[in-house]
Amino acid sequence: MGLNCVLLGAGNVASHLGPALKAAGYKILQVYSRTDSSARQLALKLEAVPLVRAGDVISDADFYFVALSDSAFAEVLPQIKIKNGLLVHCSGSQPLSVLSPFATRTGVLYPLQTFSKSREVDFFQVPLLIEADSEKNLKALEIVAGKLSETVHVADSGQRQALHVAAVFACNFVNHLYVLAEGILNEKQLPFSLIKPLIQETAGKALEIGPINAQTGPAVRYDLNILEKHLEYLSRNPELQELYKTFSKGIFELSKNKR
Amino acid sequence: MGLNCVLLGAGNVASHLGPALKAAGYKILQVYSRTDSSARQLALKLEAVPLVRAGDVISDADFYFVALSDSAFAEVLPQIKIKNGLLVHCSGSQPLSVLSPFATRTGVLYPLQTFSKSREVDFFQVPLLIEADSEKNLKALEIVAGKLSETVHVADSGQRQALHVAAVFACNFVNHLYVLAEGILNEKQLPFSLIKPLIQETAGKALEIGPINAQTGPAVRYDLNILEKHLEYLSRNPELQELYKTFSKGIFELSKNKR
Repeated sequence: MGLNCVLLGAGNVASHLGPALKAAGYKILQVYSRTDSSARQLALKLEAVPLVRAGDVISDADFYFVALSDSAFAEVLPQIKIKNGLLVHCSGSQPLSVLSPFATRTGVLYPLQTFSKSREVDFFQVPLLIEADSEKNLKALEIVAGKLSETVHVADSGQRQALHVAAVFACNFVNHLYVLAEGILNEKQLPFSLIKPLIQETAGKALEIGPINAQTGPAVRYDLNILEKHLEYLSRNPELQELYKTFSKGIFELSKNKR
Repeated sequence: MGLNCVLLGAGNVASHLGPALKAAGYKILQVYSRTDSSARQLALKLEAVPLVRAGDVISDADFYFVALSDSAFAEVLPQIKIKNGLLVHCSGSQPLSVLSPFATRTGVLYPLQTFSKSREVDFFQVPLLIEADSEKNLKALEIVAGKLSETVHVADSGQRQALHVAAVFACNFVNHLYVLAEGILNEKQLPFSLIKPLIQETAGKALEIGPINAQTGPAVRYDLNILEKHLEYLSRNPELQELYKTFSKGIFELSKNKR
């Protein structure tokens, strides 16, 4: 098995996957992005050739990693000719089958993490979910994944979909709650830094004892006195008020079932 | 200023505040709780006398810390006679004034953290918000707070209310999202452990670069392809689907304004 890769995409995922592949000894030949500056920037880092035309992708690489936004798949993939390489996408929500019109050997390598270009992540700690169209291709992908991360699991498209949805709840939606909390504080000239230990401990506690056991606060106690005060406090902001009601109800219902 | 304290309450907050006071050199004389076993357990740890009758609280302690659920204030406080001690509550959402019928010297010491009895917390890292009915009492409270934590801020009742509401969003609601994510995974026989690195990184990234800059995922990219797939995936669970819509809309609106 060769070590030559092409990286399609230069966004948040590609900018972490690329360096991880390189560090693991793979040679990145080309980096494609619709955005010239993104292609150049990442290619420079990976000592690869930047491309802005998908038609310029070489046909005889060993691996093609598709780290494009799902909406770009349909535009980019038909332009690429692949001889015998393994075509691998990195998306949580695309089935494996989406690749079959474009290559005879296909797979998925989904890194379950939130990536931002500006922030370093220890890729070796990132769980990788893999899937392939044959045992042989799965083996090939397992070898790559095992060099990139200490946590590699085989997951079919249905499981990967569940993981992606769960990740949206536990990451994107959680982060949005941080944003809303920051807004509530700033309205009273209070710094976000005041709730930093709380955010850290909330995550740490849930990871250690499990989120069901970690819950505290007025909703789980059904402290009506506080719940009513908070709803009144939020009365100028009906959206936050609605969210408050929905969450408090959900937390209380769960705690009732637990008792 | 003396060092004798009475602790009213033996729940999550009291079971962390008590040991912190003791470690700082304060003497806990009595621990009151409506629940006999809770009073005994915490009192034993603090070398204090356990009480189940609020009427047995001594009247000449230097500090009385009220770490009761807000709904218990009205029942417990009228039973206590205080000569000259400082009566201090630890609630985020009760105004200072709630204490004035029960003592001539009053204050608030609100520890901004999620406490569970079973889990140790480094109390010195917990931000303490303090308030008092006079400059002199505030000074007295500042001395206590300064021995308990490295982060002490003066906050009036309105600011404390905002902090408490923000904490509910950033802690209790966040934890509920973890619970929901765990449910989504378990439905497909996937372990919660798979999203642990994601949860850790989501918190860590928001703390470091700020939550507004940390957002990723399909909603902020407005990746309709994924959003629709996820809504379809959640179609058997209308409550999760509704939450998904609300959050995605909120995330997208904010990101639009940021651009």
